[in-house]
Amino acid sequence: MQPQPALIEELQHRLLEMGGLVETAIHDSMQALARKESETARQVVALEAVINRMEVENDSLILSLLGQPHPDPVELRFLTVAIKINHDLERMGDLAANNAQRALALMLEPPVKPLIDIPRMAQLAEMMVGQSLDAFVKRDAELARAVLANDDGVDGLRDSIYSELVRFMQEDSETVSRALSLLFVARNLERIADHATNIAEDVLFLVEGIDVRHHA
Amino acid sequence: MQPQPALIEELQHRLLEMGGLVETAIHDSMQALARKESETARQVVALEAVINRMEVENDSLILSLLGQPHPDPVELRFLTVAIKINHDLERMGDLAANNAQRALALMLEPPVKPLIDIPRMAQLAEMMVGQSLDAFVKRDAELARAVLANDDGVDGLRDSIYSELVRFMQEDSETVSRALSLLFVARNLERIADHATNIAEDVLFLVEGIDVRHHA
Repeated sequence: MQPQPALIEELQHRLLEMGGLVETAIHDSMQALARKESETARQVVALEAVINRMEVENDSLILSLLGQPHPDPVELRFLTVAIKINHDLERMGDLAANNAQRALALMLEPPVKPLIDIPRMAQLAEMMVGQSLDAFVKRDAELARAVLANDDGVDGLRDSIYSELVRFMQEDSETVSRALSLLFVARNLERIADHATNIAEDVLFLVEGIDVRHHA
Repeated sequence: MQPQPALIEELQHRLLEMGGLVETAIHDSMQALARKESETARQVVALEAVINRMEVENDSLILSLLGQPHPDPVELRFLTVAIKINHDLERMGDLAANNAQRALALMLEPPVKPLIDIPRMAQLAEMMVGQSLDAFVKRDAELARAVLANDDGVDGLRDSIYSELVRFMQEDSETVSRALSLLFVARNLERIADHATNIAEDVLFLVEGIDVRHHA
């Protein structure tokens, strides 16, 4: 008996649903930071628990699907890729929740500076998550490669955010603790983008059967 | 035909070998930092490429093993756990190499302070990696739980390292950039310990069939 296509479809549907929650978490954590919305930040923290639960449930579904014979190598690749995507999404949920918690702490403090590059970085990271999942559903190698290309934009933003915040810390010791929090927010966004890149690499493996990791 | 036990054994052997390289990378990156040994740091960076290659090869071996029928649910769990451990080890290699690169950059600068807590944190993280892999080979749930308990020690060290370095940055703006580098070294060690924790959780799932994630 082959794995039931309905279960494979359910798994894909669940991963997409989880991805939608992750995109919401990234978006809302940034809104909480930019507009000092404590209720929004708390919602992101609550969302993380939902995402965590989905990860555990999905892993269990994948394990049961793997227990059946897989005459189709593409289907088998799909399931191993699903294990990785499931984990990447959970990690992103965790990083977005961490940013929401930093937003909560920063709400009590005066702003270091107007936020410009950090929201741009968040927007780019969120777009990469959406694109990588879109590429996964459509088995679209070209779109997956577009995600890989976008990662350079994220790294460029990170570099300029870092140098600016370090300058603030050097010039006014009062800002050290707050600037450091923003620096960690940027670091978390960079890691979210890295996880989207992982998903895009997995899609390329799924579609083309080639492992592009570590060839950047 | 069942997966050949010889191949399963080879996979376990390869993961252990990879874990040994990761422990070396953690240890040597810290030695490079503490003793300003640039050659040691460069060796760690080179080691990362070896670890990356092993990840790709192991994934390919796991995929071929998964392609065979798995009447034994424990064997199937072993293979899905192997996918995760393989990835956690690769991540640790990446973080150790990042620390080696920071050690190289810091060699050109005067020290911020004598390093005491960071080497202790590295030692604890390295021990957790060794213990988690030992628990994996011996299917030892008790040892896996000991790894989970050690993670609190790592978090405690991180907190004291953070507050000390932030104080340095606030009191002497000359130290900001260097203290920030040390802060990221500590952050990387914390993440290495998190990956060891992941492995320990996977071992518990393998041995006891229960998913302990997100119940900390």
